[in-house]
Amino acid sequence: MGEISSKACIAVDVMGSDRGAGAIIAGVCQALKENKGDIKIIAVGDEGEIKENLRLHGFYKDSRIEIHHASQVIEMSEKPIQAMRSKKDSSMMRAIDLAKIGAADAILSCGNTGALMAAGTIKLRTMAGIERPALGAVIPRDGKNFILVDVGANPDPRPTNMLDNAILGANYARVAGIVEEGKMPKVGLLSNGTEDGKGNMLTQNAHILLNNSKNVVNYAGLIEGFQVFQGDCDVIICDGFTGNVLLKTLEGIMKMLKGMLKEELTSNILRKFGALLSMGAFQGVKNRLPVEKFSGAPLLGLNKLIVKGHGSSDKAQVAGALGIAIKCVRRRLNESIEKDLAKIQLEAEKKKAVESETRNENE
Amino acid sequence: MGEISSKACIAVDVMGSDRGAGAIIAGVCQALKENKGDIKIIAVGDEGEIKENLRLHGFYKDSRIEIHHASQVIEMSEKPIQAMRSKKDSSMMRAIDLAKIGAADAILSCGNTGALMAAGTIKLRTMAGIERPALGAVIPRDGKNFILVDVGANPDPRPTNMLDNAILGANYARVAGIVEEGKMPKVGLLSNGTEDGKGNMLTQNAHILLNNSKNVVNYAGLIEGFQVFQGDCDVIICDGFTGNVLLKTLEGIMKMLKGMLKEELTSNILRKFGALLSMGAFQGVKNRLPVEKFSGAPLLGLNKLIVKGHGSSDKAQVAGALGIAIKCVRRRLNESIEKDLAKIQLEAEKKKAVESETRNENE
Repeated sequence: MGEISSKACIAVDVMGSDRGAGAIIAGVCQALKENKGDIKIIAVGDEGEIKENLRLHGFYKDSRIEIHHASQVIEMSEKPIQAMRSKKDSSMMRAIDLAKIGAADAILSCGNTGALMAAGTIKLRTMAGIERPALGAVIPRDGKNFILVDVGANPDPRPTNMLDNAILGANYARVAGIVEEGKMPKVGLLSNGTEDGKGNMLTQNAHILLNNSKNVVNYAGLIEGFQVFQGDCDVIICDGFTGNVLLKTLEGIMKMLKGMLKEELTSNILRKFGALLSMGAFQGVKNRLPVEKFSGAPLLGLNKLIVKGHGSSDKAQVAGALGIAIKCVRRRLNESIEKDLAKIQLEAEKKKAVESETRNENE
Repeated sequence: MGEISSKACIAVDVMGSDRGAGAIIAGVCQALKENKGDIKIIAVGDEGEIKENLRLHGFYKDSRIEIHHASQVIEMSEKPIQAMRSKKDSSMMRAIDLAKIGAADAILSCGNTGALMAAGTIKLRTMAGIERPALGAVIPRDGKNFILVDVGANPDPRPTNMLDNAILGANYARVAGIVEEGKMPKVGLLSNGTEDGKGNMLTQNAHILLNNSKNVVNYAGLIEGFQVFQGDCDVIICDGFTGNVLLKTLEGIMKMLKGMLKEELTSNILRKFGALLSMGAFQGVKNRLPVEKFSGAPLLGLNKLIVKGHGSSDKAQVAGALGIAIKCVRRRLNESIEKDLAKIQLEAEKKKAVESETRNENE
């Protein structure tokens, strides 16, 4: 898929992350080096801090960066709705406001997830046809990355929300380059087994809906946990509870394994020497699981895209997340979602018309 | 915890696994070498095959093994209820029958999970006070293994089922040696965040119940995915859908990582040499995650214990699973669960009495 539109303006919440303005501005500058063309970044936050950091990276006079001052910061520990109400002049709220009034096409924030999702949903509203937004995450898998939706926006979805997740995820997969241009991403529904009658009630009902929507979604059916990394689905959908638990547990086990391997490989001189000789192998594994490139999870289904970066994002991760936001805007993610929703709507209307006709004939 | 009772009689379904009678009998013989004392194994299945395999391992005349012939085998692909009804003389059904009539204390099967759970629940019934059984799995974690309950028995539990899972899991943790003798296992409830209001409806309601049952369960509160491998809970409880997805996905990612590392380490002569020198490190990581020892998942909460082994279990895994069954019987797992259930019951009655008194006073 080519870049349909070259213009992209992203409002960046500079203040609310764990590492503060320094890491975010470093990432913004990195992204501007990596992404060419007509890009505008509105850096939202403390003007002094932003200027200082821009100077540090030699981007002080870059015309692609605009500063929008905000006097407050929402902390990680604050309660979402309360923070949203009491900190109207926070970098996060101001960034969302800029998207709301049309001054920005999308938002990047590495701040308080709850506040971002709540304020984003309330201020930007869901797209027509979408009841609840969903968080999508690109997960590295050897050979072929995949997208997991929802990783935490909606822990108690209804079956129709799961169909929406499939549409949102498939369109994001196209835009993020998970599938080749023109291809329909293969969508699997995560379950506790693939046999008939397996799954919880939600999964069973979503399975029926998805089977009836194959003209819009390339639905591959139920998949079980083994198939997440051993299979070839481009998009894996699940409720936001399971997705969140899964994503965070996977991060945890990767961290544990990395730590253990490092400890063991450095525990004596022989092992250290061996590790040095086979260093390329460890780098090879790392290269086959490119995590940094996909460190932003977009909140899909709102009228303007919000990309949520990890709270502890470093320069590379911020640049990666910003790259995702730019890609989604340029490739018109939301327009593409709207088209699929229109198809689903049309299908539903046709079905209704046939039913009503049948009813009239029977009367 | 010492061995309270030394006697244990386990009925083993020899036929229904992926690898057939050979692997199961090999595992049985291995377990008899590893576990001393008064053990009896009833090998249930084709008499000829069992005898042949026992001869192979030099256990043909071992008085600890008894053969119970069964003429049928339930295949992995069969539908549970149908298989249960049509194959009354299958090794699995006969093994369950032996436990039902009191001829065996517990059952080990590596066969069709659905059939085992359905027949086990119907024939053996849940313990008084338990509505639904739960599958527990010991998961290796560096430093301190933990138990995940439920990994698939009940995909749509009610909040009270989650409290039962906590009791079942904590008692299993004590018996399996996850905690030191006399210690209360630390129980965490898996959620999509630990802040107030996080979790799906089920988790939120289970959280309230667990908070009110701290005299029976050492409840540590909500934990999120990061804490599964980075934290120190001895027992992690969740619904059977999430648990099953999580367990299988973890197995999948471990398999992927192992495969990738092997490929990379053998891709050229230098790396191969390096890997040879640091071989001890890889063995070290493996030793810190002892998978084989815990390859059986008990179906907890039935009147007789059923241990489910992996369908593809090899000798070591069968021996490990059988070791778990023996341990649970000897350490009187079900008696210990009953005591906790009685405490919960007593607490509920007290509460009711106080409420009724208050009502009478107010009238």
